[in-house]
Amino acid sequence: MTQIDMNSDLGESFGRYSLGKDKEIIQLVTSVNIACGFHASDPDVMAKTVALAEEAGVGIGAHPGYHDLQGFGRRNMNLTPEEVKNLVIYQVGALQGFTSSKKLHHVKPHGALYNMAAKDYDLSVAICKAIKFVDPNLPIYALAGSETVRAAQAVGIPCAQEVFGDRNYLPDGNLVPRSEANAVITDPIEVAAHVIEMVETQSVTAIDGSIIPLKADSVCVHGDNAAALAIVANLRKTLQNNKIVLQAF
Amino acid sequence: MTQIDMNSDLGESFGRYSLGKDKEIIQLVTSVNIACGFHASDPDVMAKTVALAEEAGVGIGAHPGYHDLQGFGRRNMNLTPEEVKNLVIYQVGALQGFTSSKKLHHVKPHGALYNMAAKDYDLSVAICKAIKFVDPNLPIYALAGSETVRAAQAVGIPCAQEVFGDRNYLPDGNLVPRSEANAVITDPIEVAAHVIEMVETQSVTAIDGSIIPLKADSVCVHGDNAAALAIVANLRKTLQNNKIVLQAF
Amino acid sequence: MTQIDMNSDLGESFGRYSLGKDKEIIQLVTSVNIACGFHASDPDVMAKTVALAEEAGVGIGAHPGYHDLQGFGRRNMNLTPEEVKNLVIYQVGALQGFTSSKKLHHVKPHGALYNMAAKDYDLSVAICKAIKFVDPNLPIYALAGSETVRAAQAVGIPCAQEVFGDRNYLPDGNLVPRSEANAVITDPIEVAAHVIEMVETQSVTAIDGSIIPLKADSVCVHGDNAAALAIVANLRKTLQNNKIVLQAF
Amino acid sequence: MTQIDMNSDLGESFGRYSLGKDKEIIQLVTSVNIACGFHASDPDVMAKTVALAEEAGVGIGAHPGYHDLQGFGRRNMNLTPEEVKNLVIYQVGALQGFTSSKKLHHVKPHGALYNMAAKDYDLSVAICKAIKFVDPNLPIYALAGSETVRAAQAVGIPCAQEVFGDRNYLPDGNLVPRSEANAVITDPIEVAAHVIEMVETQSVTAIDGSIIPLKADSVCVHGDNAAALAIVANLRKTLQNNKIVLQAF
Repeated sequence: MTQIDMNSDLGESFGRYSLGKDKEIIQLVTSVNIACGFHASDPDVMAKTVALAEEAGVGIGAHPGYHDLQGFGRRNMNLTPEEVKNLVIYQVGALQGFTSSKKLHHVKPHGALYNMAAKDYDLSVAICKAIKFVDPNLPIYALAGSETVRAAQAVGIPCAQEVFGDRNYLPDGNLVPRSEANAVITDPIEVAAHVIEMVETQSVTAIDGSIIPLKADSVCVHGDNAAALAIVANLRKTLQNNKIVLQAF
Repeated sequence: MTQIDMNSDLGESFGRYSLGKDKEIIQLVTSVNIACGFHASDPDVMAKTVALAEEAGVGIGAHPGYHDLQGFGRRNMNLTPEEVKNLVIYQVGALQGFTSSKKLHHVKPHGALYNMAAKDYDLSVAICKAIKFVDPNLPIYALAGSETVRAAQAVGIPCAQEVFGDRNYLPDGNLVPRSEANAVITDPIEVAAHVIEMVETQSVTAIDGSIIPLKADSVCVHGDNAAALAIVANLRKTLQNNKIVLQAF
Repeated sequence: MTQIDMNSDLGESFGRYSLGKDKEIIQLVTSVNIACGFHASDPDVMAKTVALAEEAGVGIGAHPGYHDLQGFGRRNMNLTPEEVKNLVIYQVGALQGFTSSKKLHHVKPHGALYNMAAKDYDLSVAICKAIKFVDPNLPIYALAGSETVRAAQAVGIPCAQEVFGDRNYLPDGNLVPRSEANAVITDPIEVAAHVIEMVETQSVTAIDGSIIPLKADSVCVHGDNAAALAIVANLRKTLQNNKIVLQAF
Repeated sequence: MTQIDMNSDLGESFGRYSLGKDKEIIQLVTSVNIACGFHASDPDVMAKTVALAEEAGVGIGAHPGYHDLQGFGRRNMNLTPEEVKNLVIYQVGALQGFTSSKKLHHVKPHGALYNMAAKDYDLSVAICKAIKFVDPNLPIYALAGSETVRAAQAVGIPCAQEVFGDRNYLPDGNLVPRSEANAVITDPIEVAAHVIEMVETQSVTAIDGSIIPLKADSVCVHGDNAAALAIVANLRKTLQNNKIVLQAF
């Protein structure tokens, strides 16, 4: 039986500011990454979002990021591994407090923290040590094939390798940077085909046509707007039509 | 056997800013209230302070406050009970993440939150519900005889009633406000006598000479400077001389 | 010639969060109150909003608020007058830096700061002293008939008295609190009639039918959504039909 | 007549947190760089510090930094030039609001912003454009020989080239990084000799013995502690003994 997890960022509103179609996207995915108040969200949003996720029965993950609300955690910051470890412990602990079970399903670093860690082994080790410190059984979601995957193995925590249906891949396994024209796939049918390939073959055709191996435990999807939701709905249907079971990691 | 807990605020440094003689005061007390990053502290300070407290073997409590770093959580803010509940869950969860046992010893609200709650039953209920949500066995430290004590009983969480050795009491059981001349006791011998009276008689002589009943589970002490430490050292010695056992609540 | 200023809050977006229909509302008003980064906005939003306002030729006002981004400056905070004075100087100075002329048209306190000041003379004096310190010719926008108006006169800065077309008034001249059913007027035609009465008679019919005198220098309008914009568009047309000149204070 | 400016960072306290010996160091220098609330300070500290500086008659400069209070503005952040421009305008405007004259003497970027700009021409241009936007006559203090000096010339604002008496130089004119053993000079007599060389010869002997040209308009000194103050006091006396006039740039 082939299976895949579908994850999406959730709970990114803040105070008076609303963001994302949380109620719609949560019906389509199997796990969610909930912002923890550093790059987005606040305690009230976290309480509501965890309640929403528990009701929907999806896997609840912490989504820790840099403490940069204005930059939405998307701007690189130069922190020591120790500082990163502590900011991850803090945010994961805070989110865990809002769950009924006091257990999380996973942790997925956000934005610049995720991207920097994917290429930086020491930074990834710091993140994995933080997760292990809070709960040694708590998995990290990491870019498939990245330094973070290696770090998770070295530190000894479970790791879900993550793929992106709406992003093209470079021959070295990295995502084509958003600054380039062909970075993003917007056609729902192409996105679904891209994911089906990755899930069924555990490899991906890079932009130069080469085939690169890839472990696909979870696919990241977005719920920012109606177009994004349509992509996810089509992906979900296509996966089911291909007898791929949707299930939280 | 008569016993008392001695608690002190700890871990109030922030980034490049140092505050308090943590290493000295921690040797003199039986439990500590560690700031959680909203009115003071940051993830790095929390990590260090929890490690220090675990090494010293004192009871580790969370010290949540209003999100007002500039005002050090001492300025009243008008939040709804729901907002207060969520900010307490957040901070308690975050601190818990830094402990080895993932268990806290207690929670003590900080500054304006503590003082407002002492007089506001609904606010106290919100705080107690937050604590119960994180861990139903987690005690709250509350001003002896205050609304917070009543709320803890109603919500059903353990409560340590707290007294202040360096503060005079009004006939109604409240502390003399700091704005008044005789609010604070600075003489170490007087402070010790004040505490001995409260612990041994479970009552206190108010400023008008009247005797008011009081439950004294924990006495709050300070480690801000050398004079404060001298008061605590003398108090500790006097309690021991009076065969009062110092023990975490 | 009868004239009135129409003012609206602007530039309340923050980082990745968008708020308000700034481009639409700015075409309908004569002056704007731009958030300064404490309760909303950030330096990038301020730069864009000032540029937008300069292009539209409206009066540019600073809109300082409490430092409470999560609460959008709507939660009462207990600050000393000195603290309030300094936070107003800071925010007014910051916004002024973004203008081409290095001159502002006015200052309007935001949210809880505005409402608390309306009833608190000392707080109003602190705000007025801050404004005078930055620029003695800079007017404050204040609730008509409030303590802030008295304070502006005492401190010696110009004051525009502000009325609300979409809010009913109590017999004592205060607004009916939002918690009450008849606080807000939502029908565009009623709003326009309400404003016309205030501008032409310099008085208002309170909810109990009594007529109370009122100085109407500026009317506050909103651009949060399509319904709000429709109210403003209708008000603007009705004022012009009544030969009332729309002009910045 | 040979002259030099001596500048020092000031006003780095925040809320309940005190930092630096402002009252002592201000008596020894000719200009000060006052923190603006992003990496340190708050509106109350800024008001007090500007008053102190006006009383002492020193040149008052803004000291804008990254918005990273926990990291004291010392951690590199990856902002766009536009974002940097706006955060400088904001902070410079805010500080200017606190001055009696509404005029500043200079702007000196802080910490990571200063260091990154010294090597990054585009970042320096963004800072200089911000300064020019607020006041075209406002000088920037920049590391002698750095990209910031080039940017100031290109943008067309005055520039004071800054040297460091307590830091050794590399043959390429950059400071020896703090991570290396011989980065810092701690002996007061050596510091004074180092500065005298730079001021009198407009060159400096680098750590490899080579002589490199250098323009020395201002020397940066520190007032963090008693040892730092002793270095400054000795430097001041030695400069005067050498008939070098101490004067704000």
